[in-house]
This record gives sequence, structure tokens and C-alpha cells, in this order.
Amino acid sequence: MKAPEILAMAVRAEMDAADIYNHLRGRVKNEVLIQKLQFLANEEVRHKAILERLFRDKFPGQTLAVPTKPVRPAKGVSLDDATPVADLFKLAMGKEKEAEEFYKGAKAVVEDPVGRKILDYLSRVERSHYYILKSEIDLLDRFPEYFDADEFHVGQDLFHIGA
Amino acid sequence: MKAPEILAMAVRAEMDAADIYNHLRGRVKNEVLIQKLQFLANEEVRHKAILERLFRDKFPGQTLAVPTKPVRPAKGVSLDDATPVADLFKLAMGKEKEAEEFYKGAKAVVEDPVGRKILDYLSRVERSHYYILKSEIDLLDRFPEYFDADEFHVGQDLFHIGA
Repeated sequence: MKAPEILAMAVRAEMDAADIYNHLRGRVKNEVLIQKLQFLANEEVRHKAILERLFRDKFPGQTLAVPTKPVRPAKGVSLDDATPVADLFKLAMGKEKEAEEFYKGAKAVVEDPVGRKILDYLSRVERSHYYILKSEIDLLDRFPEYFDADEFHVGQDLFHIGA
Repeated sequence: MKAPEILAMAVRAEMDAADIYNHLRGRVKNEVLIQKLQFLANEEVRHKAILERLFRDKFPGQTLAVPTKPVRPAKGVSLDDATPVADLFKLAMGKEKEAEEFYKGAKAVVEDPVGRKILDYLSRVERSHYYILKSEIDLLDRFPEYFDADEFHVGQDLFHIGA
């Protein structure tokens, strides 16, 4: 793969990741979790902008041929209300891992030092997202209703987590 | 230690953690990092409220004797502009680890199921903070000027990270 194709695929992957976070944001009620998902979606949109800017700088006048469909569609998992929230978090975590590996691999084949630095940065940020999701999944496993609560209520003799 | 003392110490530790994040927030320029630090500070304030609420429910009419000074002051690290930002991040990461262990230990000595569930929750959230900080420190190590940049500029032939 050449650099323009790598950048186009990366832009598409960032769009797909943002889609997952935006869908998830509509599925949860926990205010803290909504903030985190919003933050993650914003990060992916920012990455997309970084990649587009890099493309314009390196290939002025050329058109970035972003794939019209997801590059690596998730098998058996769709962004609809029938898919359990926990599955979507696991999907997102897998996507972050893929993105980290993709950027690492891309860095290995790119020679331009600016491009390499950006790809290195992106791979590290995606790894940080991976760890954020890993922690959230740990919370979801332990407190299955966590995502569905407006906030944690500590009332009477009840640690009320459910809605 | 009895439950009221555990809760009082925990409240103090949450205040100290929020102080670190608030100080750090004033030291960095990177917008994404400021958002993360704000989020972390908000979380600690929320934990403090959870602990205070638990205390009121379990010990109505009693006064929560929160220590007036940090319980475990950081040796050789003070919250002032002379301390490198990277050291403060490492301090915060160590504090999150301590908090996780503290809540785990507290859970082991508390019998009340509501209290245990809350302590379990708090230990897991502090672990998630630990991982967030670990990722940020990784970025700081790799891109030392990262914290000092308004945003990542990708210009001409320059991946401009510095201010």
C-alpha cells in the first residue's frame, strides 16, 4: 500500500470508530460514561482532521479516496439497539487495538519523518483509548447496570446502580 | 481502623487527588489534556460526594473527621511550578495506585454489603484512572512538548508539537 491509500484507510477507520462511540453515547444513561464516549468520539474526529491535513500537505491537489464502506466491518455486530452495550464496548476495544497496530504497521513502511511521527503519535493515542475501554468493560462486567444509571445513588441501605 | 476513619481518610485522599489534577490543569496548554484532567478532577469530587453520602447514611448525626492535612504526602514533590509536569503525572499515577489498593484493603475489612460494593466500585475506577495516566505518561515520554502545545499542528513539512 502507498501512503495515499494508507491515509484514506486510516480516515475511514477513524470515521467508523467515531460512529461506534456516537451510537454508544445514545445507548447509555450514565453521565460519566456519556462524557467519556463524547471525549473518545471527539478524539477520532480530531485524528481524521490530522490525517486529512497531512494528506493535503503531502499530496497537494490530489483527492483523498476515502472508502465509502467500513474497511474492516465487524462480523456479526451491528450498530443497532439489538446489540448489547457490552458487545459494542468490546467491538470498540478491538477496533482500537486494530488501529494501534495499523498505525504501527503504517509507520514501518512510511519514510517521511513528519508522517512517521504522526503515525507514531496516533498509534499511542489509540493504545490509550484501548486502556480506557478496557477499564470501562471491567466496570460493566462487575456492575452490569452501570451504563444504564443516571448516576450512582447511595441511598438508605441501597447502593442503587440500576435506572 | 474503623469504618468512619476509613471513610474520612478516603475523603481526604480524594481531595488531594483533585488538588493534583487541578494544579496540573493550570500547567498544561494542550486542550485535549486539559479536558482529561478536568474529567479526572470531577471524578474525584464525585467520589468524595459518594463517600460523604455513605457516611451520612451509615453514621447519621456523626461528624466525618476528615484529616486537615494530606494523609500520605508525596515526598519531595510539591504542587508548584518548579515541579516538572512529568513528575506530577507520575505522582498522580502513584496516588491512583495507592487509592486502588486502599479501597481494596478497606473492602476486605468492611462487612456492610452496600459499603463493600461502593469500595469495590471505587477501587476499580481508580484503576481505570491509573491506566489513563499511564497512557498520558507514555505520550509525554515520547513527545516531551505534548503538554505544552495548544494542539497538534501539522504544517508544511513540520509536525509542530511545541508551543
